[in-house]
Amino acid sequence: MEKKFLYEGKAKIVYATENPDEVVVYYKDAATAFDGKKKGEIENKGYLNAQISAYIFKYLEKQGIKTHFLEVVGEREQRVKRLSIIPVEVVVRNIAAGSLSKRLGLPEGTDLPFPVVELYYKNDELGDPMINHYHVQALNLATPEEIKYMEDTALKVNSLLKEFFDSLNILLVDFKLEFGRFHDQILLGDEISPDTCRFWDKDTREKLDKDRFRRDLGGVSEAYTEILKRIKEKAE
Amino acid sequence: MEKKFLYEGKAKIVYATENPDEVVVYYKDAATAFDGKKKGEIENKGYLNAQISAYIFKYLEKQGIKTHFLEVVGEREQRVKRLSIIPVEVVVRNIAAGSLSKRLGLPEGTDLPFPVVELYYKNDELGDPMINHYHVQALNLATPEEIKYMEDTALKVNSLLKEFFDSLNILLVDFKLEFGRFHDQILLGDEISPDTCRFWDKDTREKLDKDRFRRDLGGVSEAYTEILKRIKEKAE
Ligand SMILES: Nc1ncnc2c1ncn2[C@@H]1O[C@H](COP(=O)(O)OP(=O)(O)O)[C@@H](O)[C@H]1O
Ligand SMILES: Nc1ncnc2c1ncn2[C@@H]1O[C@H](COP(=O)(O)OP(=O)(O)O)[C@@H](O)[C@H]1O
Ligand SMILES: [Mg+2]
Ligand SMILES: [Mg+2]
Repeated sequence: MEKKFLYEGKAKIVYATENPDEVVVYYKDAATAFDGKKKGEIENKGYLNAQISAYIFKYLEKQGIKTHFLEVVGEREQRVKRLSIIPVEVVVRNIAAGSLSKRLGLPEGTDLPFPVVELYYKNDELGDPMINHYHVQALNLATPEEIKYMEDTALKVNSLLKEFFDSLNILLVDFKLEFGRFHDQILLGDEISPDTCRFWDKDTREKLDKDRFRRDLGGVSEAYTEILKRIKEKAE
Repeated sequence: MEKKFLYEGKAKIVYATENPDEVVVYYKDAATAFDGKKKGEIENKGYLNAQISAYIFKYLEKQGIKTHFLEVVGEREQRVKRLSIIPVEVVVRNIAAGSLSKRLGLPEGTDLPFPVVELYYKNDELGDPMINHYHVQALNLATPEEIKYMEDTALKVNSLLKEFFDSLNILLVDFKLEFGRFHDQILLGDEISPDTCRFWDKDTREKLDKDRFRRDLGGVSEAYTEILKRIKEKAE
């Protein structure tokens, strides 16, 4: 399969394929935080996230969620449908952490009474600011119908993944999704991994996600490895 | 009328009266900006804002908006219905300025395609963060019905005031409203003044509001005086 470099982000590289409707996504070990101000590498992250993400997309597809995922190709790559990414990130939260704790003054670990959905404008220069429905329309980022579909789907994904990770003795604290247009459809795209989710061990509440990198807690690669291990055990 | 100090904010002092359903609001000359980090005085602001606010509340009442306003008492005071203030500020914007320009990267002065509504959590310690409907519910700040009423009313107020100020050759750029509970009603409360609105002269686009104070542009009191003058001329 011939690959032509298309574009590179902070965590992945996207290659065109012979099929104009498909791309290959390569997962890097590079890690960034705080709008790219903190930079580093997490050993083996590309492999770990490619595998974790693939498992999760396959699981969601089986549960009826439409995603970009096609297949794993090699250790760090996925073949996926080529999306025109909608620059609105959808965040769902079950437990207060990170920017929500700061914004609302809720101690990290506070259970939320119901899943909280937030929208962010995917724009590195502006630092991915939180936005509302009026901003989405004023900037013409997505139609009201698209945003509704994205929010509804994000809440479905939350229900499915909360239960899935619960069975691995993991709390799904929060996560971020990206969606994109594919012909007349909206598909779930990008990745779902410890880079884009907060995972806490259910018994110890130990962090098993990128917060270990953000906060210099050590054992970063080990945490990602543990997530993949628990998923694989379940899958077998 | 006997007055008992109730509480003091950054711009006003609230006094209890003999009637438990009413308070007297005293408008101060004190001015603050940037979450209280910048402090100063604007000459005569208390008088000017008390008068401007009274005119606007009377105008809105005449147009069918339910407000807390009862009457002007003295130069800097208003008798109003005593509200239990809902700690959600409703902002409406017609032209990009201030924090919206920063958040979305829109140059100040960009016309918005339609009025943009934003919600902020009225909380000095947290710096009045922007919030969405999920946050309002998670923090139990207001019911969905209350928020809907507040947003709908804010948009009505925008239509009314945009037209009113247009007739004074003034652009209503944006403004912030506070609402409160009064028995089984929600009333528009607080103040509507150059402290809480952005006003630009329609011909020169000169700022006639608190941005003159925020940005050290000089002529602050003169700008507030000009707003009151144009309102009074129209009222006569
Ligand atoms: N199926 C897809 N088709 C096209 N682009 C995609 C797809 N999935 C994700 N992308 C985009 O690939 C780019 C690279 O990913 P990443 O390195 O995570 O970027 P970022 O630095 O924006 O987080 C991002 O712009 C992402 O939105
Ligand atoms: N009708 C009312 N009844 C009771 N409190 C009110 C009423 N209108 C406004 N307030 C409150 O009076 C307080 C003083 O006003 P202000 O000085 O503007 O306060 P802040 O520093 O919070 O901006 C604020 O908490 C405001 O919400
Ligand atoms: Mg990314
Ligand atoms: Mg105030």
